[in-house]
Amino acid sequence: MKTFINPAKETWNDILKRPTQTKANLEKVVAEVFSKIQDEGDKALLEFTAKFDGCNLSSIKVSKTEIEEAIALVPDKLKSSIEKAARNISKFHENQLVVEAPVKISNGIDCWRKTTAIEKVGLYIPGGSAPLFSTVLMLSIPAKIAGCKEMVMCSPPNKEGKIHPAILFAADLCGITEIYKLGGTQAIGAMTYGTETVKQVYKIFGPGNQYVTAAKQYATMEGVAIDMPAGPSEVLVFADDSGNASFIAADLLSQAEHGADSQVVFVTTQENMIVEVKAEVEKQLNDLPRKEIAAKALNNSILICVEDVYQALALINEYAPEHLILQSREEAFFVDRIVNAGSVFLGNYTPESAGDYASGTNHTLPTNGYARAYSGVSVDSFVKKITFQRITQDGLKELGNVIEIMAEAEELMAHKNAVTIRLKRE
Amino acid sequence: MKTFINPAKETWNDILKRPTQTKANLEKVVAEVFSKIQDEGDKALLEFTAKFDGCNLSSIKVSKTEIEEAIALVPDKLKSSIEKAARNISKFHENQLVVEAPVKISNGIDCWRKTTAIEKVGLYIPGGSAPLFSTVLMLSIPAKIAGCKEMVMCSPPNKEGKIHPAILFAADLCGITEIYKLGGTQAIGAMTYGTETVKQVYKIFGPGNQYVTAAKQYATMEGVAIDMPAGPSEVLVFADDSGNASFIAADLLSQAEHGADSQVVFVTTQENMIVEVKAEVEKQLNDLPRKEIAAKALNNSILICVEDVYQALALINEYAPEHLILQSREEAFFVDRIVNAGSVFLGNYTPESAGDYASGTNHTLPTNGYARAYSGVSVDSFVKKITFQRITQDGLKELGNVIEIMAEAEELMAHKNAVTIRLKRE
Repeated sequence: MKTFINPAKETWNDILKRPTQTKANLEKVVAEVFSKIQDEGDKALLEFTAKFDGCNLSSIKVSKTEIEEAIALVPDKLKSSIEKAARNISKFHENQLVVEAPVKISNGIDCWRKTTAIEKVGLYIPGGSAPLFSTVLMLSIPAKIAGCKEMVMCSPPNKEGKIHPAILFAADLCGITEIYKLGGTQAIGAMTYGTETVKQVYKIFGPGNQYVTAAKQYATMEGVAIDMPAGPSEVLVFADDSGNASFIAADLLSQAEHGADSQVVFVTTQENMIVEVKAEVEKQLNDLPRKEIAAKALNNSILICVEDVYQALALINEYAPEHLILQSREEAFFVDRIVNAGSVFLGNYTPESAGDYASGTNHTLPTNGYARAYSGVSVDSFVKKITFQRITQDGLKELGNVIEIMAEAEELMAHKNAVTIRLKRE
Repeated sequence: MKTFINPAKETWNDILKRPTQTKANLEKVVAEVFSKIQDEGDKALLEFTAKFDGCNLSSIKVSKTEIEEAIALVPDKLKSSIEKAARNISKFHENQLVVEAPVKISNGIDCWRKTTAIEKVGLYIPGGSAPLFSTVLMLSIPAKIAGCKEMVMCSPPNKEGKIHPAILFAADLCGITEIYKLGGTQAIGAMTYGTETVKQVYKIFGPGNQYVTAAKQYATMEGVAIDMPAGPSEVLVFADDSGNASFIAADLLSQAEHGADSQVVFVTTQENMIVEVKAEVEKQLNDLPRKEIAAKALNNSILICVEDVYQALALINEYAPEHLILQSREEAFFVDRIVNAGSVFLGNYTPESAGDYASGTNHTLPTNGYARAYSGVSVDSFVKKITFQRITQDGLKELGNVIEIMAEAEELMAHKNAVTIRLKRE
């Protein structure tokens, strides 16, 4: 862990540099996989799954029986925990459905927006050692609240051709309409084009490795929307002397265990907090099963002491952390002024894991500084807004000349004529 | 114009195919321009402007004097028209600023979202024969309402090194903070990285040719967000016998004059309307200054007679038109059921040009079928939403076990520990 005491503002950019992401030059690989899926459909998917996941599937689609069997395998305690989390996530996300009032621009001119769900969405849940059923909740609950009609999900099968029971339980709970045993590039390609078995979608969501990221990028060039660009997870904790060093260490470690490329930043106005947090991190690290991964991430991690809360605020807004934890007497100061962050956790008893799982907020968030321009996933991500307008003959009489003058100045005479021809009508 | 009478549903996909866009393989060109801008800054920009725009600039940034001179050149009638349009656009977009209520998830758990403006945005206004000052309004008014602090604008200079006065007038009216004489790839590259003169931005908006489109795509890989993917403009008009053939023809032509690749679709339940509209199009076409462009677009245009409104609705939702004009007795039927469209114009006196210029809605809309997943530009495009949460010690006592169980099942023990360590504290 690297420590910086009152570093000059000009050096922040360097200090806070995220671990360099090797720009994976995977476009060629992705293009080949996508093109084969377009040409051969299911046949290509079965071949890729045999090659990349090491299993020969008889069917890509998860059957009802498989889902029922999986549900029976999930321990009751885990089931009720997932259900509780789902209720909280639903409660938070239902609040995001807003009905916008129509606008009377002037007499005879009415304009409004109608929010409509994206009809077909695809959710990608990565495989790997641990089953990310929490991501199933975070993507499918807002999709369901938005009113998406078709919610398809892809997740890679293990060597036995199965998806983890907890993932299937969560998917079933949240109303996913189709589940496919597909991972990586071939999952994204299948949802982009559709095959005999896999339904085509209009927008693809979800995390994944560099192949998935490259495939999602490629999908956008094939007319499919995606949730947001991906990057390694990160947390920034700010604390003054009201913070609790052992809680802070636990939060830093919970970020560090995600992956060796996770970034962990601690900012404080109290130099002694750096010493305390460092000691606590070392103490707690040893007990973690994923301590090797966490230790690697900690190598890149940064502890910074700044002069005052103004400096801290400036640094936070410049870094734009995915997760921001604030343990500070001056919480209100920060809440009012934070402009760049994904999700903010306030106070000593609000660990990031609460938001990762069960408090209700979404855990699919902008990393890598994208919080400067992107929001996390929400119901907004699953809808689009159509504008409507109705103009009466009188309304057009009032506004028509303005349109004619502007259209003429832009040299678009047919645009002008569409008004003129109507104004001439008695 | 190709006519289809009651075509089978299976053929719609073929009939409604958009003009094939040659996938411009411009990534290499863009990468070179971007890399030179990163290395050489302003020097590179001046060179590219000399090369591509054919003018040697002494300064990239438009000066206050230049703006004042331009304002003096704009005719008063055009000024007041632009001002009237700006008021309507402001009125419609101000309504999009919503304050979301906080959510009490349970005792001791509070979650909410805060809407914050994207601090730095870049607006691109294409050059070419006509000055697109209307696009200045459509991008900068929602940006200003959102509260963006820095709104920079790029537009290519003409051979004399000037930007059209109406563009500068509109930019000044709407509070653009910096205006640069930059076009094409170099404009997008400059806003992506920033140079000595040009300010770096977090999100880039605006239309453009295939170079601009490729550059915006490239910018997303460099960490900058963009408004949406671009494609040729398009309109679909549906009318029954309550429609007015000459108005419809004028609307179809106003789309056709945009460019040879514009797509124009007319759908009706009344076969005779096809004959009438066709005759009107031919009649009106001759009087247009841009009739050659419009005639080319009309070659790709389609007239379809369908059996009933259900068929019409299905066809509209499948095509997902950027602009949809409805002249129908059964307007309410459509309004309730349209799910894929950018902007909808209702009734005989609501021409698309009203929305293009002055009724208040935005004209930056999803083309090319993107209306299935994207909204047009709005205040939403210039903000992001940060989630906040505060959990009390009691709140965590209540929810903590759920988090622990889920974290353990995902094999993320440090996530679990961040809760456990807090629950242990008395």
